[in-house]
Amino acid sequence: MPRTFAGSPVRDLLALTSRPEVISFAGGLPAPELFDVDGLRAAFDQAVSARSLQYAPTEGDVDLRGLVADRLTRRGLPTAVEDLLVTSGSQQALTLVVTALLEPGAVVAVEEPTYLAALQCFQLAGARVVPVAGDEHGLDPAALADVIARERPELLYLVPTFANPTGRTLSAARRAEIAALADRHGLWVVEDDPYGELRYRGEPVPSLASMSDRVLYAGSFSKVGAPGLRLGWLRAPESIMRTLVIVKQAADLHTSTVDQAAAAVYLKANDLDEHIRGLCAAYRERRDAMIGALPSTVPAGTRWSDPDGGMFVWVSLPGGVDTSSLITAALARDVAFVPGAPFYATTPDRSTLRLSFTTNTVDEIAEGMRRLGTVLR
Amino acid sequence: MPRTFAGSPVRDLLALTSRPEVISFAGGLPAPELFDVDGLRAAFDQAVSARSLQYAPTEGDVDLRGLVADRLTRRGLPTAVEDLLVTSGSQQALTLVVTALLEPGAVVAVEEPTYLAALQCFQLAGARVVPVAGDEHGLDPAALADVIARERPELLYLVPTFANPTGRTLSAARRAEIAALADRHGLWVVEDDPYGELRYRGEPVPSLASMSDRVLYAGSFSKVGAPGLRLGWLRAPESIMRTLVIVKQAADLHTSTVDQAAAAVYLKANDLDEHIRGLCAAYRERRDAMIGALPSTVPAGTRWSDPDGGMFVWVSLPGGVDTSSLITAALARDVAFVPGAPFYATTPDRSTLRLSFTTNTVDEIAEGMRRLGTVLR
Repeated sequence: MPRTFAGSPVRDLLALTSRPEVISFAGGLPAPELFDVDGLRAAFDQAVSARSLQYAPTEGDVDLRGLVADRLTRRGLPTAVEDLLVTSGSQQALTLVVTALLEPGAVVAVEEPTYLAALQCFQLAGARVVPVAGDEHGLDPAALADVIARERPELLYLVPTFANPTGRTLSAARRAEIAALADRHGLWVVEDDPYGELRYRGEPVPSLASMSDRVLYAGSFSKVGAPGLRLGWLRAPESIMRTLVIVKQAADLHTSTVDQAAAAVYLKANDLDEHIRGLCAAYRERRDAMIGALPSTVPAGTRWSDPDGGMFVWVSLPGGVDTSSLITAALARDVAFVPGAPFYATTPDRSTLRLSFTTNTVDEIAEGMRRLGTVLR
Repeated sequence: MPRTFAGSPVRDLLALTSRPEVISFAGGLPAPELFDVDGLRAAFDQAVSARSLQYAPTEGDVDLRGLVADRLTRRGLPTAVEDLLVTSGSQQALTLVVTALLEPGAVVAVEEPTYLAALQCFQLAGARVVPVAGDEHGLDPAALADVIARERPELLYLVPTFANPTGRTLSAARRAEIAALADRHGLWVVEDDPYGELRYRGEPVPSLASMSDRVLYAGSFSKVGAPGLRLGWLRAPESIMRTLVIVKQAADLHTSTVDQAAAAVYLKANDLDEHIRGLCAAYRERRDAMIGALPSTVPAGTRWSDPDGGMFVWVSLPGGVDTSSLITAALARDVAFVPGAPFYATTPDRSTLRLSFTTNTVDEIAEGMRRLGTVLR
């Protein structure tokens, strides 16, 4: 008998939205019309060679690691080539960390709600997941201290900047407190940061990894470049890098040599910061369009997050409604969202839902929110 | 503390051979000068698009799965699109199967010696590995029946065609017996088949998967196309496909969309069978050069396998020598091989070594074997 795992909510949700007439706020997809298709095609053209078609070292392409290390260093997180392991997307980084660090039955602390594929990953590893309370400034350090004292977690997982699903950002002061707790208690922390460069207002907050050697930092090309390449990276302390490389080798030997070479060529030939400024300009308008439409979309008493960046707005409806019961009606009106329950490790708040504002244009957002309003109000 | 795993023999061995003056028979690398670089570059040029840069379904590209299904069907293994999961190389297929099917402490039976990265994968999953005896015709079904009765394994792993490291092929009669044992005892079997199309003489043997629904078949683009794309596929029964897809999603969401699209374009635009005929012609000469050089390379009393295909010759030296003690001397003479011990699950035969004949030209093989002779004789 195969082992039994809970269904796959992301997968089921992506299936929901495949009809072209549906305006989907469900998937966390970057806008495909903003991909630099020509730049990436040129990069592949230059990158394909006998060398890039061959097996390669597990750690990843040295050129790519150097370019990523330079970017992280410029953003305030001093990083050397040897600190980085290239992964098949940051999703794989998470799976590798779990395999490298957790025995079955280990305790993992998470902010709540949190990224649902992370929860799935912990479940597959046989870990016990314990939620930590937070608010609009992110995870609450006092609540984390309680969980540490009570549950002795091995690992804390969080998306501190423009979180999935809430869009919230952990304040700098709280980051310092969490880093100090990690150091004091020997807690490993995974800082999952796929969205950090997609900031539409305000000033950058220092990364958790810059505050403690107990923090493993996962980054990704998926939101600032293109997700189809499945390219991410993990910045990890020397003490566990060797184990991570062994686990990565057993997982898939190494990440696609061609995709790594193409990304390295692309980063050398193009100004990624300029490309990201273009993304931010477009996504800022979309964010504003969605936030602006919310008051006329939702019933009185609804609360929503007001993200400074990223891809998501998190909505809490009044009156004890279960948002999963509204999905069928929404799809009948050709609009989609994600019910909030799967983002909770334990007891879900079923009156929540997640809306993504990056995939659709401002006009599509206006029309989609109009349709959504007919369901929610 | 990170979990503790044994070192990574493949990785250490690849590091040994990176000096350009070394003629390496160590790595299982395809010949890079035989890659169809122009054909693959053209395929990427056509494949890069907004669609292929986006997230995609976990199961894999429908076009690619259809093309692979057709190839398998033509080779005598009737396969539909829904039977296939695209993986990041067949190494990942193995890791997914292990996660989907095995609880920690489960028993895995393997032919001995066997692919060392498979052993590593079972170890990471906390499985107990039990070897099954074999001979020049592959795994012995009677020995497997004994192991089933004594150890109740959940899974049997084997490379039935041109095995790594021995080059041996399991006979058709034994395949039928093993398939019957799998059916009778509810044993899962992984048929790892990266080399099956690289046949230099004799007739194809039917795949194990064509004989039993308990067999999961792992194939790869790495040896017939190029390994840098990290493209493999797993053919699995419907009863476990859903679980495998959930595990794959947690592992890396999906395999590179760009690489999948490029492979699909390549398979449509080119005659892969014709390309494989070219590979076989070159590798046949290299195999013959190595086998022809062996009598003057090794001491009297040495035995070696005489493979009909694949990449490897397996050598057993006389006189109780430990081949790992010869590595330093070999590298001093600018030649490399893999000592046999890491290919054993339990008690190694340390007098064995593996030679790969695919990476070097006939002239390089002649010179490399001359150098090796000064170490071994």
